[in-house]
Amino acid sequence: MKQLVILGILLSINVSSQTDAENIKKIYSNSLTNGKSYEWLDHLSNKIGARLSGSLGAERAVAYTKEELEKLGLDKVWLQPVMVPKWIRGLPEFAYIETLPGMTTHVNICALGGSVETPGGGVRAHVVEVQGIDELKALSPEQVKGKIVFFNRAMQADLIDTFEAYGGCADQRYAGAMEAGKLGAVGVIVRSLNLRLDDFPHTGSMTYGDLPVSQRIPSAAISTNHAELLSTMLALDPSINFFFKQNCKQMADVESHNVIGQITGSEFPDEYIVVGGHLDSWDLGDGSHDDGAGVVQSMDVLRLLKESGIKPKRSIRVVLFMNEENGLRGGKKYAEIAKSKKENHIFALESDSGGFTPRGFSFDCSDEVFNKVLGWRDLFKPYLIHYFEKGGSGADIGPLKSDHIVLAGLKPDSQRYFDYHHAATDVFSAVNKRELELGAATMASLVYLFDAYGTGTE
Amino acid sequence: MKQLVILGILLSINVSSQTDAENIKKIYSNSLTNGKSYEWLDHLSNKIGARLSGSLGAERAVAYTKEELEKLGLDKVWLQPVMVPKWIRGLPEFAYIETLPGMTTHVNICALGGSVETPGGGVRAHVVEVQGIDELKALSPEQVKGKIVFFNRAMQADLIDTFEAYGGCADQRYAGAMEAGKLGAVGVIVRSLNLRLDDFPHTGSMTYGDLPVSQRIPSAAISTNHAELLSTMLALDPSINFFFKQNCKQMADVESHNVIGQITGSEFPDEYIVVGGHLDSWDLGDGSHDDGAGVVQSMDVLRLLKESGIKPKRSIRVVLFMNEENGLRGGKKYAEIAKSKKENHIFALESDSGGFTPRGFSFDCSDEVFNKVLGWRDLFKPYLIHYFEKGGSGADIGPLKSDHIVLAGLKPDSQRYFDYHHAATDVFSAVNKRELELGAATMASLVYLFDAYGTGTE
Repeated sequence: MKQLVILGILLSINVSSQTDAENIKKIYSNSLTNGKSYEWLDHLSNKIGARLSGSLGAERAVAYTKEELEKLGLDKVWLQPVMVPKWIRGLPEFAYIETLPGMTTHVNICALGGSVETPGGGVRAHVVEVQGIDELKALSPEQVKGKIVFFNRAMQADLIDTFEAYGGCADQRYAGAMEAGKLGAVGVIVRSLNLRLDDFPHTGSMTYGDLPVSQRIPSAAISTNHAELLSTMLALDPSINFFFKQNCKQMADVESHNVIGQITGSEFPDEYIVVGGHLDSWDLGDGSHDDGAGVVQSMDVLRLLKESGIKPKRSIRVVLFMNEENGLRGGKKYAEIAKSKKENHIFALESDSGGFTPRGFSFDCSDEVFNKVLGWRDLFKPYLIHYFEKGGSGADIGPLKSDHIVLAGLKPDSQRYFDYHHAATDVFSAVNKRELELGAATMASLVYLFDAYGTGTE
Repeated sequence: MKQLVILGILLSINVSSQTDAENIKKIYSNSLTNGKSYEWLDHLSNKIGARLSGSLGAERAVAYTKEELEKLGLDKVWLQPVMVPKWIRGLPEFAYIETLPGMTTHVNICALGGSVETPGGGVRAHVVEVQGIDELKALSPEQVKGKIVFFNRAMQADLIDTFEAYGGCADQRYAGAMEAGKLGAVGVIVRSLNLRLDDFPHTGSMTYGDLPVSQRIPSAAISTNHAELLSTMLALDPSINFFFKQNCKQMADVESHNVIGQITGSEFPDEYIVVGGHLDSWDLGDGSHDDGAGVVQSMDVLRLLKESGIKPKRSIRVVLFMNEENGLRGGKKYAEIAKSKKENHIFALESDSGGFTPRGFSFDCSDEVFNKVLGWRDLFKPYLIHYFEKGGSGADIGPLKSDHIVLAGLKPDSQRYFDYHHAATDVFSAVNKRELELGAATMASLVYLFDAYGTGTE
């Protein structure tokens, strides 16, 4: 009798996981043969382009994605208003190394997002090179005052996960100008956060904290090739001058929107699963990897579930967040409203690491839920999805964090991400159709499983 | 007492695997911070270029790689003569679809390697479209005679491993002209083996088997975009004509060489481990992925072992095989000589699937050895190497197969491989430095382990 009972349990597990395997196969096949993500990305990248918060591009992207979601026959599509910062780059930046009076070498820079402009004629000063904020702080005030501080710490090449290498350098970009301003520097030049040696400067967010306006100095990124050049020239002659000019500006906040679409759950309509990416991008390139890919993959998750004949038990929302890059206002607003409405969010998944071949997910959840997820690993094996680790999830879904929600981030192959990140190289042609589609299917499969089985913490 | 013994065994396993972990870490760090593979590939691709067997490029590649191996301070570097076929493309091919007399649409084709030329003025004929050889054979002779056969079976997009999709279509390219020639066709056009829709024709090898010369008809690949166009036009009007002209030729065999370098083993010098790729490439593009990547990775395996302070017990050979693409003469010659000298080859590893992010290896070996390999998996986990499966290895090392040798192939991510394979798009800029270097380190790590522990079949 005992044996029969055990057999019964085993059989029911097998049947269920066979259905799961079949549904997941349908999802992948559909994405690879009939996916919409690549076509949507083509439009977003090539017909709309860069989508910095407060820009016309961002507003066109809101309208376009809302329209496309409406075509999918979801139960509900709406816009969620949110005030966002508006920073404008102004005229193209201009910079050179001056080795002798009038003898100049042009270098490629771009203002960092949030930076102030240079005073009218530009900044020309001697340069002090440091490998990071600690090294800056160890200098005497005279070594910094009136100088341009050049942060030149390179991303660590022998880290396998390039996001780890990014994390080890991003403080220079984010806080370098604030720290150098306190010490009386007149400008900051930061080595681009790029593992390649090439000619493209990479922008990104920076802060002045609560520094008085008088101490806020202009800050720009320099291409890795030109960072190497500047460092070499400084080694030959520490007295050379650097000149740069930029006329970027922070404007008043403007209204923008998160774009949201929903399939309402058939059994537990009040339990919400969110899948999303961010609709805004930096203003260089067209943000195809960061985060056009995440946007179109998230949109396709809902379509793939529908097309595969899966009727979600829980309510599945795609949320296209506004303003991840320089404010996170969209992510914060979404969580604020969810909280005020007491919506029970059980799972949120973000794709914001590029449209490369998916390798798996990182999870921010309890050990109990994580073990449940590990039980699903074999379902992903045919698709070469092997990475299931605890770790971060996504910036936009971070504000949803609670003691019971499960947060996850798609982990694509990271080797090429920083070749494109925040630079003019982040364009549609850098995205491979199959890799993008595999990512969408991988996300849809995890959403399917969490919808089918819940998190156990509802 | 019993417990103490067990403890002793456990400790020794831990110590050994800690040393292994450290050595493997050294190998990866060295490859990512101080690798030579990318620099070598730059030279091979940009200073030498395409390397079809019998071409000047192939001979220059032999000289260059020999010279570079000699700089590494190996114990021995030599050339192994081998006669190779020489096929020449001749003048650029020319093709069009003729919808009305004189109303033509130019399309992109390239002769398949080994094809005969078109008769003097080119071939102009009606077209019969088929989805493969079976469909061709089901036609009546009148449906084929005097026609151009258009093989248009597309690679199956929902297979995750693109090599599997390739395997499902390659017969059209390889044997299509032979089968169509038997039925009296006057030419063959084959859809390029490419999962993307783009404008590049992809060449590759084909055969006439033992068909009499009179039945050998010219055969060319057409870009996927133009295959779609041709198919669409045929659907509108089956009576349209297709014209193509090519003046390729098979010449007499010429002498070329495999390039070999060796570190002689300190303990078991008569046990050989081979790591290799193929030095020849097709004549479109510069063969950066196929197989420049495998060549420079294999060269770097020996350098990485040396630089990491590892002194191999067994003799490690890098073998750069000539003529994989259209004859496999180098692989056959190497095995023939190894056999005649009774050299005991215990392990051979080939990299010939592109220079993309490595995912793991496929193994051609006994279950016993495979289980041993599975025991090494955790050592690879920090490098996201997760794929260890039984399967094929590499074309060039295939002739070494015996009842005790272990054969393996590096498995990089396969999604983008056929975007470049055998086409003008296979160039240096399509290779990412870190991905290439990760592949070299992954190969070196497996070679290190087989050297340290043997295969158990020596």
